[in-house]
Amino acid sequence: MHECGNDAATGGYNFSAGPAMLPRTVMRRIRDEFLDYHGIGTSIIEVSHKSAVFRDVLATAVGLFRDVTGLPDNYQVLFVHGGARMQCSAVPLNLIARSATRKSGYVETGFFARQAQQEGARYGTATVVASSADTGFDRIPVLPAGSCTPDAAYLHLTSNNTVYGTRWHTFPANGTVPVVVDATSDILSRRWDYSQFGIVYAGFQKNLGPASLALVVIRDDLLGHALPETPLLLNYEVYTKSQSLHNTPNTFAIYVMTLMLTWIQEQGGLDAVEAVNNAKAQLLYRELDCSDFYLPTAHRDHRSITNITFRLRDESRTAEFVERSAAQGLLALGGHHTVGGIRASIYNGMPLAGVQSLVRFMREFECDSV
Amino acid sequence: MHECGNDAATGGYNFSAGPAMLPRTVMRRIRDEFLDYHGIGTSIIEVSHKSAVFRDVLATAVGLFRDVTGLPDNYQVLFVHGGARMQCSAVPLNLIARSATRKSGYVETGFFARQAQQEGARYGTATVVASSADTGFDRIPVLPAGSCTPDAAYLHLTSNNTVYGTRWHTFPANGTVPVVVDATSDILSRRWDYSQFGIVYAGFQKNLGPASLALVVIRDDLLGHALPETPLLLNYEVYTKSQSLHNTPNTFAIYVMTLMLTWIQEQGGLDAVEAVNNAKAQLLYRELDCSDFYLPTAHRDHRSITNITFRLRDESRTAEFVERSAAQGLLALGGHHTVGGIRASIYNGMPLAGVQSLVRFMREFECDSV
Repeated sequence: MHECGNDAATGGYNFSAGPAMLPRTVMRRIRDEFLDYHGIGTSIIEVSHKSAVFRDVLATAVGLFRDVTGLPDNYQVLFVHGGARMQCSAVPLNLIARSATRKSGYVETGFFARQAQQEGARYGTATVVASSADTGFDRIPVLPAGSCTPDAAYLHLTSNNTVYGTRWHTFPANGTVPVVVDATSDILSRRWDYSQFGIVYAGFQKNLGPASLALVVIRDDLLGHALPETPLLLNYEVYTKSQSLHNTPNTFAIYVMTLMLTWIQEQGGLDAVEAVNNAKAQLLYRELDCSDFYLPTAHRDHRSITNITFRLRDESRTAEFVERSAAQGLLALGGHHTVGGIRASIYNGMPLAGVQSLVRFMREFECDSV
Repeated sequence: MHECGNDAATGGYNFSAGPAMLPRTVMRRIRDEFLDYHGIGTSIIEVSHKSAVFRDVLATAVGLFRDVTGLPDNYQVLFVHGGARMQCSAVPLNLIARSATRKSGYVETGFFARQAQQEGARYGTATVVASSADTGFDRIPVLPAGSCTPDAAYLHLTSNNTVYGTRWHTFPANGTVPVVVDATSDILSRRWDYSQFGIVYAGFQKNLGPASLALVVIRDDLLGHALPETPLLLNYEVYTKSQSLHNTPNTFAIYVMTLMLTWIQEQGGLDAVEAVNNAKAQLLYRELDCSDFYLPTAHRDHRSITNITFRLRDESRTAEFVERSAAQGLLALGGHHTVGGIRASIYNGMPLAGVQSLVRFMREFECDSV
């Protein structure tokens, strides 16, 4: 039980799981230059994608991403239509022909991992090689040795599970079978070595910008294997050859991504941002672990630092918690519709002060209940 | 030859073919409410697509589109990832199974029409039933009687040709074979009767909003025929059942579309907007027809009202024309990279004053040349 007081801050923080809050300096800059981008007399959303102005934005986005992440040279950075969910189709369409038997492996760690596997099954044999379904997706399952046979085209996993609040802290070595990662909800939240992956894809709407575009990072040797029935704009080779300009891309989203990456640099780089993200998450987990009023739902060894999920011991008060927090400006704290409970999504755009406000509210709500 | 004077206006008009200029009142409103949408304490790009706030935006977009166009009730309004070019794949994937012999027909009227046909050929026999290639796509070809056999799944045409500056003034009746129209560059520029079409699709980046989303209007009976290999997010039935919310849509673009439709209503509706569009186009064509310095490229009977294409008789001065006009704030007047020349794209967002400025500049440029 916490000491009770009356110091709940007024809020103004949006805990939405995505589309999500972006850093305020980024949002203000978009607003400030919205009508006239860098003095060119028109908005960045009104210029041709083939103009020198936009080509510079695109090159900046790719260059900054390479710099911030230390991406090896043998990986392409692509901007693909449709968000992460469209890549659940694009990945098998581009890779499954690498396996003569059309085999792939999926680790089932939650809602989106399952969706990816179901779509993979449209184009071949998509085996669930490990699952944590039997414990309610509260953890990352152990990957059995030899679970992904050498004749599989790829092994798919989800680095962070937005719905259940778990993540892979480290990733499995997988021999010659390339690991494909859906990193939508924790890309750029932490540093990792891209050379351990074949493809990393991520929807934009958490740490990259506005919704409906996907960032796809792909190792060069995985290009050129697309099935003949692959729609032209789901073929990663088409994006590579055209530098994502085969048709009009989501120019606004790519522009916002340059601001998001610049913001990371201004914070001191990815390691500095990761340190803040760890501090934010630990503040919340400490609160949950010290309380018997709130119950964290993810296994302690597999906790996400971007989506912190918990329940009220008295679940009948969940709606009241969500309503009262919203009234204080702490928005969108309800859990995913498939699981309920509470979820605080704290991507890069959420400042430490926002998490501190949430902790103050949680204490206040708990104290009002005794 | 025109009378010469010295009344060239200072500019500030963007003639880009797309992404294109949007109405200034729309752009200012986006800017003004960007950080705090309707007092909810966060931006419209930061709220969940499943929130009540965004669901209201989505319902408003669909409702306004139905009102403004008079869309019959047996048509769905969908928001599909990837712009018009992605629909070049989605259309055959969704419709070709309606033909036991996998036949479709395409009218080849230019660059994008040809791209659509090439993608259609990936999924069946995509016959070019008529083409104006032999006259440099300067017109809409005559459709031979019986050119699209009753066993075809659909007939595809492009209502307005962005690159060559031509358009269909009226559309061919086609018996029981549904007509599918790429209306990217003239949707909402004029009124038409949707009941003559099976599908109308349009990329957003001219008259609807920012780039990379497509509006797809589809007649109910054409749903439910998708090939098994159709990626989930290219299946129009998935969008219909989920009301375009199966995954996170381009929330920003849909929001902007509500403002674009509201703007049309404020102008007096689609007929009033069409009248202004006709006046803008006639002003430019009159100038071209009265001049022997400028040469209009589209056949007089097939002229677009949204993309006005012409050449300088002395083509060596084209670059100078583009540079000098840009210096006066008349931006992006260069023709498509495949054809060169000059192109003035004057969608709904371009006011009459912008076209008047262009005409003044054209006269000035011509006078300086004598």
